[in-house]
Amino acid sequence: MSTAEADDAGPTVADLGEEGLLAAIAPLLPQATRVLVPSGDDSAVVAAPDGRYCISTDVLVEGEHFRPDWSTGRDVGARAAAQNLADIAAMGARPTALVVSLVLPRATPVAWVQDLARGFADACVGTDAGVVGGDLSVGERVVVAVTVHGDLGGRQPVLRSGARPGDVVVHVGTLGRSAAGLALLQAGLDDRADVWGEAVDAARAGLASECLRIYRAPAPPLAAGPALADAGAGAMLDVSDGLLRDADRIARASGIVVDIADPDDDPDTGQAHDLAALEPIARLLREEAAAARSLARAWVLTGGEDHGLLATLPAAAGRLPEGARVVGAVRARCEGEPAGALIGGRVPDQLGWDHFRA
Amino acid sequence: MSTAEADDAGPTVADLGEEGLLAAIAPLLPQATRVLVPSGDDSAVVAAPDGRYCISTDVLVEGEHFRPDWSTGRDVGARAAAQNLADIAAMGARPTALVVSLVLPRATPVAWVQDLARGFADACVGTDAGVVGGDLSVGERVVVAVTVHGDLGGRQPVLRSGARPGDVVVHVGTLGRSAAGLALLQAGLDDRADVWGEAVDAARAGLASECLRIYRAPAPPLAAGPALADAGAGAMLDVSDGLLRDADRIARASGIVVDIADPDDDPDTGQAHDLAALEPIARLLREEAAAARSLARAWVLTGGEDHGLLATLPAAAGRLPEGARVVGAVRARCEGEPAGALIGGRVPDQLGWDHFRA
Repeated sequence: MSTAEADDAGPTVADLGEEGLLAAIAPLLPQATRVLVPSGDDSAVVAAPDGRYCISTDVLVEGEHFRPDWSTGRDVGARAAAQNLADIAAMGARPTALVVSLVLPRATPVAWVQDLARGFADACVGTDAGVVGGDLSVGERVVVAVTVHGDLGGRQPVLRSGARPGDVVVHVGTLGRSAAGLALLQAGLDDRADVWGEAVDAARAGLASECLRIYRAPAPPLAAGPALADAGAGAMLDVSDGLLRDADRIARASGIVVDIADPDDDPDTGQAHDLAALEPIARLLREEAAAARSLARAWVLTGGEDHGLLATLPAAAGRLPEGARVVGAVRARCEGEPAGALIGGRVPDQLGWDHFRA
Repeated sequence: MSTAEADDAGPTVADLGEEGLLAAIAPLLPQATRVLVPSGDDSAVVAAPDGRYCISTDVLVEGEHFRPDWSTGRDVGARAAAQNLADIAAMGARPTALVVSLVLPRATPVAWVQDLARGFADACVGTDAGVVGGDLSVGERVVVAVTVHGDLGGRQPVLRSGARPGDVVVHVGTLGRSAAGLALLQAGLDDRADVWGEAVDAARAGLASECLRIYRAPAPPLAAGPALADAGAGAMLDVSDGLLRDADRIARASGIVVDIADPDDDPDTGQAHDLAALEPIARLLREEAAAARSLARAWVLTGGEDHGLLATLPAAAGRLPEGARVVGAVRARCEGEPAGALIGGRVPDQLGWDHFRA
């Protein structure tokens, strides 16, 4: 269902009007446990028991971040929520409250917006977070702008700037799945479309579906954020623009070098496992084995939007938190060397994604 | 300058890329005094000294809420910030922190975005609020989605539901100026364009410019929010969709009747003064006196977006806070009568603005 086509899709947002639309989606939105004044007044009021709160914001734009023929409303809602929730986890905090500004074409089916609300609820399962407010507006394309809030529970926030020489670099979550899912869709390989069954053998269907699922609605390891903070993480962020680009951000903020292990050199790293997992998917798009491996390597090292957590931990931290896999190491800069990320000790050809230049 | 035309307007956002654009606007944004971790990490961290915080969000869409040929980037920034700051004041709180999600066409001049940042700074003058984070994305039309936060300073939040029979209804700020300014622009009467000098006599130019200024960048009476709360306000909101529609919201949330005085009946009310002020402007658009008065009346009673504060106060509250003008009274519902707003004791023909149906 397209957001802009209302044929047989029931009433549109223009049919219901602003208050009618709000009434149609409000019961579907996730409820926040920390809210003192809920949605419906000029502002919501949320509890901040330790006297501080985290804020982050992220926006999804139809045609730029998602295509309505590839993603349902539910996918878009889950993705918009998940990428915001990951930013809170990456501080070592727990998400508490979201507000959502929606820009919708007048012809958008109400059912699509209800699906979007269900996606928000999906992403908030297992958390205390809920939607405490929002704004509805009309426009030519769908825009979903989310602001998320979190509670540090007395922890110090884990910034990007706290990486120290000798730290290990760990990652929790998946790498490259979202980029692989997008590449499958761009090649016409959609598990929700008829073309799928003919083009993909059964053995790879599950793997490919996992990539498509993560592209459409990533599932960041939210609980790992506070766990990594408690384990002594010096620096942390969620991988939204690719492992190398986001490692580079930690490196530059911390004034050190992050050396990401090359998966061709070290088969025991997290990225080597992800690369091995994604090679069969890349073979769906590249017949030649070397070309397929190169494509999978690009997904793992420079593909963003799986929203796993990348953190640095003191080498003496002991047992890694659940799900954490070593992906590299932190070292001091040599004389004259700039801060930044390396891959296998070398300066990478490209880091990843810049939305404005694409 | 249009947002979409880059001729002779210097570099575009596509020329600079995301990080370059951020560097170009960051120094121009207002600084928040309560921020513990500023913009630049996954989340900002803001202090909440009384253990609670207010959140509200509002979005502006190019072509729906503003036209780049009528409003500069600075106007749009100031308006986006002001309408959000007003939501915090309407709870009886002081604004502390804003986050801004910007969707920009790739051809947008960087100078336009810098102007937008200056507009945010304009709107935050005299407050402790600043921009603590944001997101930049590309899209076909400019979208400015703002989330604002506030500090209640130990006060109880003033909801919409606290109006009681016997209360007086007061308003602080202007009524109808924004609607009048929009009508002037729709008629081609723009004080920034050449047409202006020929069409408008000198006596009315100042009045008209005030309306255009408030349309482009409203200046809500932010300090009046906490002052009205301290004076005992039972219910409060900012007038974003028109006096009658927003009075109706208080009435329905509180289960009472808000009777707004008809400016034709009572020349001592705030709305009567605003009507008298706007009649000369309406005469620029309607030759006939009765038609002009009718137009000005519609602006005052149903025009939104001046973002003044509408509040109910106990009749025994004594001296009104500075700038507050009586606009009506609260009474209990008669048997079988629905909660709602009346105008001069009668059910109004229309309440005001619905963005989705317009």
